[in-house]
Amino acid sequence: MLKEMLDHVREKCPLIHNITNYVTVNDCANILLACGGSPIMADDAEEAEEITAICGGLNINIGTLNQRTIPAMHLAGKKANKLGHPVVLDPVGAGASKLRTNTAKALLEDIHFTVLRGNISEIKTLALGTGGAKGVDADIADKVTKENLPQTVAFAKKFAQETGAVIAITGAIDIVADSERAFCIYNGHPMMSSITGTGCQLSAMTAAYVTANPEAPLEATAAAVCAMGICGEKAHARLTEQDGNSSYRNYIIDAICNLTGEELEKCAKYEIL
Amino acid sequence: MLKEMLDHVREKCPLIHNITNYVTVNDCANILLACGGSPIMADDAEEAEEITAICGGLNINIGTLNQRTIPAMHLAGKKANKLGHPVVLDPVGAGASKLRTNTAKALLEDIHFTVLRGNISEIKTLALGTGGAKGVDADIADKVTKENLPQTVAFAKKFAQETGAVIAITGAIDIVADSERAFCIYNGHPMMSSITGTGCQLSAMTAAYVTANPEAPLEATAAAVCAMGICGEKAHARLTEQDGNSSYRNYIIDAICNLTGEELEKCAKYEIL
Amino acid sequence: MLKEMLDHVREKCPLIHNITNYVTVNDCANILLACGGSPIMADDAEEAEEITAICGGLNINIGTLNQRTIPAMHLAGKKANKLGHPVVLDPVGAGASKLRTNTAKALLEDIHFTVLRGNISEIKTLALGTGGAKGVDADIADKVTKENLPQTVAFAKKFAQETGAVIAITGAIDIVADSERAFCIYNGHPMMSSITGTGCQLSAMTAAYVTANPEAPLEATAAAVCAMGICGEKAHARLTEQDGNSSYRNYIIDAICNLTGEELEKCAKYEIL
Repeated sequence: MLKEMLDHVREKCPLIHNITNYVTVNDCANILLACGGSPIMADDAEEAEEITAICGGLNINIGTLNQRTIPAMHLAGKKANKLGHPVVLDPVGAGASKLRTNTAKALLEDIHFTVLRGNISEIKTLALGTGGAKGVDADIADKVTKENLPQTVAFAKKFAQETGAVIAITGAIDIVADSERAFCIYNGHPMMSSITGTGCQLSAMTAAYVTANPEAPLEATAAAVCAMGICGEKAHARLTEQDGNSSYRNYIIDAICNLTGEELEKCAKYEIL
Repeated sequence: MLKEMLDHVREKCPLIHNITNYVTVNDCANILLACGGSPIMADDAEEAEEITAICGGLNINIGTLNQRTIPAMHLAGKKANKLGHPVVLDPVGAGASKLRTNTAKALLEDIHFTVLRGNISEIKTLALGTGGAKGVDADIADKVTKENLPQTVAFAKKFAQETGAVIAITGAIDIVADSERAFCIYNGHPMMSSITGTGCQLSAMTAAYVTANPEAPLEATAAAVCAMGICGEKAHARLTEQDGNSSYRNYIIDAICNLTGEELEKCAKYEIL
Repeated sequence: MLKEMLDHVREKCPLIHNITNYVTVNDCANILLACGGSPIMADDAEEAEEITAICGGLNINIGTLNQRTIPAMHLAGKKANKLGHPVVLDPVGAGASKLRTNTAKALLEDIHFTVLRGNISEIKTLALGTGGAKGVDADIADKVTKENLPQTVAFAKKFAQETGAVIAITGAIDIVADSERAFCIYNGHPMMSSITGTGCQLSAMTAAYVTANPEAPLEATAAAVCAMGICGEKAHARLTEQDGNSSYRNYIIDAICNLTGEELEKCAKYEIL
């Protein structure tokens, strides 16, 4: 099943409109190309709707948020909704400032999202208004563990029910849930958090996966999350003694570039709760 | 002849003012350093003219175009014209939105460009107002092939005549033309399109080449295009089984860093029509 | 002594607020993670103070300076001063335009900086209003050499006295001075200037070092400068024949990721004047 999700991305080469931060934008573009999609970055209100209209899907990311691009996010999101295009929200740093929290909430009210992808603190902020946040990283107190997994799954399903979106909470254990089912995913490597932007990259790639698999947003998102985790593992196995986080970044994107549907199917480690 | 073009860049180390997008800007800076030039990025209207004045050449790229930087592009371009500095335009995504198409056309009216470099759809949009565009990539219907090469060369020469600029249309076959002669260049590798920003990088490098070779903009542009293609080939030959587009990006810039004039002369594959 | 500085960064994982340029921002984020810190980038005036407040230190860099972010720099800097957080200024291109020179001077008047880090031309511009500048690189005439070292050290100590900041002048010889003592550092490799942003990266890392070592800003800055230089050497030793500046960039960040306190202590080459 995951195999088909990946194969559809490579067959359809979905064009993804990204309104995203300037920190990790280059990596987002390259991972979109690596997975088989095609990126376009455009954040001016004057062209946002037009660019969305020529694309298949939209990825909104609020890192390095600024007043100039917020209107473009709303315009593009509403246009995508009108056209029936999938939309992903990455609420980077929601909870860390009022600007980010309020912008993320306003986007949620204005736009129907196909997927909300963030760390546990960001998603809690959106759902409950109470997530802690250590800058753009999750609060330790919020961490998803084997022990609190059932509660977190229930929380994710409930938020999925409320929003109509697939909820993707990523961390040591990843949870990808709609209102009824949750993929708990055990792929990945701790060193992934030593690179800036693995979350942003995953959100961009998820947009490509849900765009290429419009009938199956839950499975498509799970496939993207498994793909990222598996490639984090493969890239780690490739590290030499002299390599560090910069080479690791390159190796993860390289691994996405080389990942086959068969590998994805075989190496994915998850249970459905 | 190509050898001299490269050697002049390394001898003169031209300082290039870039007003460019935030997706590929880091790669543009690094390839400028790799080829022997020196980059400065500055896009605020208040400093645009001053920065242009201390540089030798100017590179304007309309990717991630926004209202804030358009006035800076006009100010810098006019200043460069006044000082006799070469100016390159990369009309990224012209044809994909009215903002980009109209901005590119307004720049063309206001500024004399030394080189216009884009894919076939972007250049057709500028010349005819009819180029298709699949986001920032060329439309398949526009593709330059062995069959339509004579017509495309005639189109490029005519547009060069009209604008007084060297026209560089890059793709599987690259065409670099002034009103009388066209270099048809057969270097490069298909995998180059799996990296974001090879076009942007080439435009930045072209600015360095035409700045270091003010008497020979056609040959200088052809040399930059051949250099990029050759390095795309060399970088591809270096790929291991685990490498993907991210390592490929690094290897191309590395290859530009190591390219000698002799290699450029020997490996360039072109005919003049 | 340098060992402890590095160890404190890894123990405390200081969260650093960066208001920085879009050219080298990704590298700044990755080197902060590599050295043991944690980055957050936020440049909108509406959230600047809030983000500063949740961080331990602040790094202000005026590359790709624009009107939109200048107020955020002042707000964040004053907030950091109020909270007693260390603040680093990287006056990229001061001297190259009035906008940059005047902005850097206004920041200096408004904010107390813990460290000012730049090349000799940028620092001279701030101190004397007379530094030459070749874009974002130092003027040859300003170059620090064995011969003018005593005068440059005296200049740095005097400027440290005037500003109450540690002055870090980096180049072939690096000088890190407070009003009484100056570390003259001989680590590094000439090839570091063939990468965009090694200075920006060092400023970001310096913010992490001074934040983790609040009692010893001089030693902490010297440790960061030595670390960068040593890693420039180690990364250079790792280069293969096909590697160029792009791989070198990755290798430097990798080396920072792997650098131990013992190595830093052992490989640092400096004298105190």
